[in-house]
Amino acid sequence: MNFDEIIDRVGTHSSKWDMMEPIYGVSPKDGISMWVADMDFRPPKCVSDAVAAMHDHGIYGYYGDDATYRAAIQWWMKERHGWALDKDAIFTTHGLVNGTAMCVDAFTAPGDGVVLFTPVYHAFARVIKAAGREVTECELRHDGAKYVMDFDAYDAQLTGRERMVILCSPHNPGGRVWTREELEGVAAFARRHDLILVSDEIHHDLVMPGHRHVPMSLIEGAAERLVMMTATTKTFNIAGAHAGNVIIADPGLRARFAARMAAMGISANSFGLFMTEAAYSPEGAAWVDALCDYLHGNARLFDEGVNTIPGVRSMPLEATYLAWVDFSGTGMPAAEVVSRVQESARIAANHGPTFGAGGADHLRFNLATPRARVAEAVSRLQDAFADLQ
Amino acid sequence: MNFDEIIDRVGTHSSKWDMMEPIYGVSPKDGISMWVADMDFRPPKCVSDAVAAMHDHGIYGYYGDDATYRAAIQWWMKERHGWALDKDAIFTTHGLVNGTAMCVDAFTAPGDGVVLFTPVYHAFARVIKAAGREVTECELRHDGAKYVMDFDAYDAQLTGRERMVILCSPHNPGGRVWTREELEGVAAFARRHDLILVSDEIHHDLVMPGHRHVPMSLIEGAAERLVMMTATTKTFNIAGAHAGNVIIADPGLRARFAARMAAMGISANSFGLFMTEAAYSPEGAAWVDALCDYLHGNARLFDEGVNTIPGVRSMPLEATYLAWVDFSGTGMPAAEVVSRVQESARIAANHGPTFGAGGADHLRFNLATPRARVAEAVSRLQDAFADLQ
Ligand SMILES: Cc1ncc(COP(=O)(O)O)c(C=O)c1O
Ligand SMILES: Cc1ncc(COP(=O)(O)O)c(C=O)c1O
Repeated sequence: MNFDEIIDRVGTHSSKWDMMEPIYGVSPKDGISMWVADMDFRPPKCVSDAVAAMHDHGIYGYYGDDATYRAAIQWWMKERHGWALDKDAIFTTHGLVNGTAMCVDAFTAPGDGVVLFTPVYHAFARVIKAAGREVTECELRHDGAKYVMDFDAYDAQLTGRERMVILCSPHNPGGRVWTREELEGVAAFARRHDLILVSDEIHHDLVMPGHRHVPMSLIEGAAERLVMMTATTKTFNIAGAHAGNVIIADPGLRARFAARMAAMGISANSFGLFMTEAAYSPEGAAWVDALCDYLHGNARLFDEGVNTIPGVRSMPLEATYLAWVDFSGTGMPAAEVVSRVQESARIAANHGPTFGAGGADHLRFNLATPRARVAEAVSRLQDAFADLQ
Repeated sequence: MNFDEIIDRVGTHSSKWDMMEPIYGVSPKDGISMWVADMDFRPPKCVSDAVAAMHDHGIYGYYGDDATYRAAIQWWMKERHGWALDKDAIFTTHGLVNGTAMCVDAFTAPGDGVVLFTPVYHAFARVIKAAGREVTECELRHDGAKYVMDFDAYDAQLTGRERMVILCSPHNPGGRVWTREELEGVAAFARRHDLILVSDEIHHDLVMPGHRHVPMSLIEGAAERLVMMTATTKTFNIAGAHAGNVIIADPGLRARFAARMAAMGISANSFGLFMTEAAYSPEGAAWVDALCDYLHGNARLFDEGVNTIPGVRSMPLEATYLAWVDFSGTGMPAAEVVSRVQESARIAANHGPTFGAGGADHLRFNLATPRARVAEAVSRLQDAFADLQ
């Protein structure tokens, strides 16, 4: 577990490193890539050993007999999240963008509204709109330190056409670990408006010391409308495997989802299955613990550094490796901020408005990279905004 | 390229070997698995090297920059099939069951009819029905030696509710390489009934000496309604990668398909992308040539052997490694045939009726296994039906 090792990803078909120049105009030669949410670290050895074992056996045919795979998922959720789940509740989709899309497809109709608490992970709105559904943006409120929910405002906002709410828990890009009370609030909100509640918990393992994630499945009164989404891909940095789990306890919802899985001909690739089973293990758990410590160190370094720039505020991370930075206090137009970050600091970071309402004047920085790079990014940002000092 | 090497797949999460007992009651201990359409061979070294290279680099993040991937597909189709295609015509689905389902979803509505020439690959009917569409079974005619099409009969059979026809070319399970004239007939049939024409050409590389596959894309008058489907997975035995290509020249159809890909959140896993690019290469081509020779030898051995059994007829294979064997001449009830094959010969083979109308009294045997196993299977079948001699 040497998270400090710099591994060159340029020219390896890495979206993060090989697409930064076409998309942000930042050359990978001297630029720092801090956008796409994957990490510049190798996964734990148990996961790469699973790939090596596939290679050594050498035949990559159709996968069968997923009992141990399902058991590994059950073990992880119980061990790490205190969540006992039924093995037959588990579906495997081609990652959670596909999982989200399958939920939208299975549980809503064209023209229906889907509620998002924005700003939030951009692909939610993308698939909702691509499917001809409407996005209802319920904007998170900034309480001075962090994002909170304002259910009175959301109740007033809903039109009655909404059929689903998608929660990002923990929250990307705000880094919140929602408290039990907040989650109860979301469940009550879903009940009040009779919404299917999709809880995307892909970031649930990447929680900073001092915080504890509560799975929505443990919130009373949610089960009958709940769809849980989890994955190894974010936790273990294996997004290329495109595997995710949609986990549905309610028999009626489960049957509806199963019908759409069959209609869309969705079944999992064997790499995702083998890597997931290997990851959800004691060795995987120890690696995640070490990873979270490292990410915490990166977040501290980054926040302390960028918060010295007048008018710049990084939201404290309770989870995820994605720092959400508010530049509005600089008084600069967004284009000026972006040009200083991309052209002066030579950093590719996600633009806030892509995360929906409330994203203006923000950039999202991916801190899952060796610490030296985070330090370099901080110093470049300080230089790029040095005139504000 | 040692196709004779026996590689033990039992206990490797192989659908073919690890699910034969639950499904067919044939123990892998002394049974021979001849059902699921994957091969008991390793892929060419260029493909396993691609997996090794991923492992050596060690980071399995989001894939980006697919230019070389698209170029490899273009190269293969031009070089091996004389088909020049536009790189932007290529979509990557999670295999071709998913590809078929996406076509049904994009181009038909619930209640519409989809035409199949049966018997045919069973997953077609499965996804069509799961999507709430109707299957119109146009039965292939047996001309004494092989399957042929009877368009007069099909014209009379159609109701006007049909919107799509799915052709399996080459044909699974009948092993036909359709001639140019036959393909022209299919295109004309599709035009006459205004059907979207989906041509599943997943078996197009596995063609026996003396036959030549013609891509439907080369048939005049088909393009405006044509969807081509291809993959490396069958050719190179990498079905676990769950990757396939849907290739659409027509701009209108392409846009409709693209919209559904976006709505379903479909994007490819990196293993499939890397392995496909590696496979579609000169080294991959040389391996396929050797493979086809070997499969041809297996088919000759199998056919000669089982055709000695009175009343048993194996359809001559022009393509694929799937032998389609007619037991009707034995006069035995289907259950008796199945019990002799499964219980006496201890062979797991697909049951004919799962392939739709015309499949009765047939079994499909997968010959993509070391020759010694094919020989053993032949001798067991001869023993199991020895009383007919
Ligand atoms: C909340 C959330 N859901 C889903 C995803 C992506 O999931 P996948 O790669 O499995 O499609 C991300 C990636 O950043 C994410 O942040
Ligand atoms: C005609 C045909 N299409 C598609 C498939 C399966 O494709 P995939 O594994 O890519 O879903 C098969 C597998 O046997 C097949 O024979």
